[in-house]
Amino acid sequence: MKRIALLTSGGDASGMNAAIRSVVRVGYVRGVEVIGVYSGYKGLLNADFHPLLPRDVSGILERGGTILRTSRVPEFKEKENQLKAIENLKAAEIEGLIVIGGNGSQSGNYALSETGFPTIGIASTIDNDLWGTDYTIGFDTAVNTAINAIDKIRDAAVSHGRTFIVEVMGREAGFIALDAGLGGGADFILVPEIPFNIEKIVENMREAFRKNKMHHLIVCAEGAIHGRDLEKEIKKYMPEADTRVSVLGYIQRGGPPTRFDRILASQLGEHAVDALLGGEKGKLVGIKDNKITLIPLKDAVTKRKTLNEELYRLAEEVSV
Amino acid sequence: MKRIALLTSGGDASGMNAAIRSVVRVGYVRGVEVIGVYSGYKGLLNADFHPLLPRDVSGILERGGTILRTSRVPEFKEKENQLKAIENLKAAEIEGLIVIGGNGSQSGNYALSETGFPTIGIASTIDNDLWGTDYTIGFDTAVNTAINAIDKIRDAAVSHGRTFIVEVMGREAGFIALDAGLGGGADFILVPEIPFNIEKIVENMREAFRKNKMHHLIVCAEGAIHGRDLEKEIKKYMPEADTRVSVLGYIQRGGPPTRFDRILASQLGEHAVDALLGGEKGKLVGIKDNKITLIPLKDAVTKRKTLNEELYRLAEEVSV
Amino acid sequence: MKRIALLTSGGDASGMNAAIRSVVRVGYVRGVEVIGVYSGYKGLLNADFHPLLPRDVSGILERGGTILRTSRVPEFKEKENQLKAIENLKAAEIEGLIVIGGNGSQSGNYALSETGFPTIGIASTIDNDLWGTDYTIGFDTAVNTAINAIDKIRDAAVSHGRTFIVEVMGREAGFIALDAGLGGGADFILVPEIPFNIEKIVENMREAFRKNKMHHLIVCAEGAIHGRDLEKEIKKYMPEADTRVSVLGYIQRGGPPTRFDRILASQLGEHAVDALLGGEKGKLVGIKDNKITLIPLKDAVTKRKTLNEELYRLAEEVSV
Amino acid sequence: MKRIALLTSGGDASGMNAAIRSVVRVGYVRGVEVIGVYSGYKGLLNADFHPLLPRDVSGILERGGTILRTSRVPEFKEKENQLKAIENLKAAEIEGLIVIGGNGSQSGNYALSETGFPTIGIASTIDNDLWGTDYTIGFDTAVNTAINAIDKIRDAAVSHGRTFIVEVMGREAGFIALDAGLGGGADFILVPEIPFNIEKIVENMREAFRKNKMHHLIVCAEGAIHGRDLEKEIKKYMPEADTRVSVLGYIQRGGPPTRFDRILASQLGEHAVDALLGGEKGKLVGIKDNKITLIPLKDAVTKRKTLNEELYRLAEEVSV
Repeated sequence: MKRIALLTSGGDASGMNAAIRSVVRVGYVRGVEVIGVYSGYKGLLNADFHPLLPRDVSGILERGGTILRTSRVPEFKEKENQLKAIENLKAAEIEGLIVIGGNGSQSGNYALSETGFPTIGIASTIDNDLWGTDYTIGFDTAVNTAINAIDKIRDAAVSHGRTFIVEVMGREAGFIALDAGLGGGADFILVPEIPFNIEKIVENMREAFRKNKMHHLIVCAEGAIHGRDLEKEIKKYMPEADTRVSVLGYIQRGGPPTRFDRILASQLGEHAVDALLGGEKGKLVGIKDNKITLIPLKDAVTKRKTLNEELYRLAEEVSV
Repeated sequence: MKRIALLTSGGDASGMNAAIRSVVRVGYVRGVEVIGVYSGYKGLLNADFHPLLPRDVSGILERGGTILRTSRVPEFKEKENQLKAIENLKAAEIEGLIVIGGNGSQSGNYALSETGFPTIGIASTIDNDLWGTDYTIGFDTAVNTAINAIDKIRDAAVSHGRTFIVEVMGREAGFIALDAGLGGGADFILVPEIPFNIEKIVENMREAFRKNKMHHLIVCAEGAIHGRDLEKEIKKYMPEADTRVSVLGYIQRGGPPTRFDRILASQLGEHAVDALLGGEKGKLVGIKDNKITLIPLKDAVTKRKTLNEELYRLAEEVSV
Repeated sequence: MKRIALLTSGGDASGMNAAIRSVVRVGYVRGVEVIGVYSGYKGLLNADFHPLLPRDVSGILERGGTILRTSRVPEFKEKENQLKAIENLKAAEIEGLIVIGGNGSQSGNYALSETGFPTIGIASTIDNDLWGTDYTIGFDTAVNTAINAIDKIRDAAVSHGRTFIVEVMGREAGFIALDAGLGGGADFILVPEIPFNIEKIVENMREAFRKNKMHHLIVCAEGAIHGRDLEKEIKKYMPEADTRVSVLGYIQRGGPPTRFDRILASQLGEHAVDALLGGEKGKLVGIKDNKITLIPLKDAVTKRKTLNEELYRLAEEVSV
Repeated sequence: MKRIALLTSGGDASGMNAAIRSVVRVGYVRGVEVIGVYSGYKGLLNADFHPLLPRDVSGILERGGTILRTSRVPEFKEKENQLKAIENLKAAEIEGLIVIGGNGSQSGNYALSETGFPTIGIASTIDNDLWGTDYTIGFDTAVNTAINAIDKIRDAAVSHGRTFIVEVMGREAGFIALDAGLGGGADFILVPEIPFNIEKIVENMREAFRKNKMHHLIVCAEGAIHGRDLEKEIKKYMPEADTRVSVLGYIQRGGPPTRFDRILASQLGEHAVDALLGGEKGKLVGIKDNKITLIPLKDAVTKRKTLNEELYRLAEEVSV
């Protein structure tokens, strides 16, 4: 291969820039030209292509977001548009494609790979919900940001003897909620994967009040229940509860990436280039059992990654 | 004076602990016993008094919240309860009182001072809305937290070419919004003190789009308009706008205090003790033109502090 | 077992408190009494024992350092003192011991276990140099702190077009240097495990100057070469070099632990209790290939953990 | 005036970019062209001039360092070079100059102004040692970084019961040391402006040991005594002292600026433009008593700013 393309797609995640830097520089070292595609799949449709050299990715390792921009392009689900994209790539003499993104983005990537064009995905989403990889780029940074926010919120919770409900991201999955809850010392963690019982939570709170523990922290994934709704549910059983809700929102996406995300991104970038050059296609580069691994894109986007239930149980134990 | 009491009241603010530490240690140095009152005015009503020695305030300088706990006690507005509080103080042979808190708390403090009991207030609220003082303890930390959050959110705004609305605290006043907006590089800042025109904002956004600036940051004080409502308003004029809302919420209260808040808190604590010992009463200790100053509590809680309009204009200029 | 003891030893590492909290609370859930030993092995010699209940470890999850205090006790290498320690444990009807610490501390622990007394170690050192475990508690936080410092230092390096030498901890091993260097975007990384050639570094720098890249970042482990000495070496070959040295030092040990360290510490704490209760002895609890694992203490402290050379090579590639 | 030049000079300070952004955008609003001079006075000598438009300063508000680069140019002290600089400015039809920097840089600026060419300075140095201004851009960020580092170091100090010596920047002045020491809760603060007595410090430490306070934090300005030398001095009187030294170094210069520095920089930038346009020359823009003010450059660089001794005394009181 002489020329490969690179794009970022879907929700931005901290560490995407570190992955871009790695692909561009490893590509350079391997003697392959790397072409940046702007604004995700939109750029494939518009042939918005720009060569990237090592100096072009200077000073981006520590920056959140993505210098290639990103977008959500629902119309990319249409076969016609996918073929248009392949056409544009071929017209520019591009022989392979690397897509940095999460579930939806890798679905698009899988569709492209089904046309026979060599594509590789790099697992990157704060949600960490891609099957076959233990971690995705952006997850560690997102959870650290959430934990840092919870540390601040605990100050208020303790000072007032209040119950704080902290809603974190995760529409389909509770990975952020579980790690942020365990890492933030939450009393209760609500995730989409595990049923919860408001009455039991309220009972536990009453028990704690009797032991003079007046403050509580509840972390919920947006996909389990919204913070406001949870507050209403709790007040049904405990109208006197002094509750506050905090929705962490978009701060979870940005900021400088952590060690974990910078190094994971650098590794996945390198392996993505080497996979393409080695003749692989239709694969996602991820990390499994602390080793960089290739996962069939089809599996990555269709199989459901399960939550670590042992960790969930541990979170209950350490919050006694 | 041989014995004085100290309490924190109302919303917690980062730096309250630094002020507690200062009062306790300066009191010790001046030879006066400092009694901590737990849970704000509630502790005055219950005579929840605990002597505080220099070692009791070790390791709290860097912690958000307040080790004395805080509360909101609406019934403290009743004369009867105020007299009960004074009675409890006198029964414990306490000769003066220092109240660390914001507007509502200093109103209670003013009421107490009107009975003739020597009281001093220390200006502490993240809202910075006490008349007569340029800054209050907790404001600088709150704004730094907001700016740090905006820095993260900008990563997503730029990467997606989106409009982000960031709602910060401030029910009555736009101090946090103005400083967070100017410091965070917001394109528009909405505060309760200054009328705004959604149509004009939308017009400016369209103008920017024409110049290919696709992302925007709007910072609004909760007291000017809620983020969700602002989003609806914008969509009325610009249904195609790609907007997201982030409500920063309680992270603004907590966390380790900044240099500014640690030093201000240490200074105000010292001057509060010295004011009481010097025979002052019914005063708020604050900072004006970079000098520690005493403000009549009555003025502090009844007069309205105005926003720095020059700073607001500057924010408009530097966002061109 | 009805009663177990817990101590922290050697250099403090962020996340030790999270491990203490986990041991205490999981112990409580399992129905075993946990006795805190103060100041490491010194506390074993003095029988400085204090029962720990779940409330005693409230609010420590986010704090650096160790509430049990720590120490270095060279005289604990003497058999006589080890027997004295076992005697004190038995006199207090303590049936098992958990030691949180790094290489030196686990050597002492191994010695104790050789007497037949049931002991378990929890891998905790910022240096990450315990054989058999991929990570140790405190390493991730230390490297994140180093990366954050390097991010700040790069601002000056770029602004002045200077060469900055950043010395990180690691007397025997380059784990911190490698991850901080790769994560911080260093141009060169010097570790004890891999020989380096100053002349070649200087040559590369000259090459970069020709391409108009004027700033450089060199990260060195203290065990490879001290920053000041490296500066002298560089100046031998390049007297005109505009160099500065920054020794990061003790900031690497403290501060609030990261997600990684909080969760690892919680997991290792739980498994340490369960290992003891399950009849294990003379083992270190660590993490291998993303799974919690038991390593014979003897192996952990006598075998030499090797650096990931692939990661080292990657660091060279992404710094082109 | 139709065209003005802007440069940054001397040691970089966080917030310089915010000041650049303000000068460029306010200049644009006022209808004056702003020309960026690269690498400080070196760029004046080489006529390294580049027009700056509002979009050129996008995304720099939050970045440490200076996009205009900086340098130290000792030969700029020579009259001949100053005249060469003025010649270059005039040749480019530049009618005024703004210099962002500290003491040395403003001395150069004063020399230029003495030729009659209209120049204005913006007070920016982490050292805060310019006469006539209460604060300089970069000081607040530097001290916050130092305080954050001290917070981490205290974890180790407390855990080991050790004495930590933290050396901060400040060759001529103790402003950073005083604020970092007071804000970081130091037991002793050593500054160039105030004589200190090692024997008395050691005496106080012994006294604390007797009260079972085993850890100590000493903050020293590099200009008062170097950390290593202080350690030796202490060990003369107290050979058994368990001391460690941490030299904070260059992390104090960089990183994202704080609220204080972003807003101060925005204000000073605006006022510098307006001062030039209003016909002022040979002045430094600073802040005095919370108001933006103009100081004769001659005074700013020749008079000695005094340390706030009340604050120093307060630091002693709150460390009892």
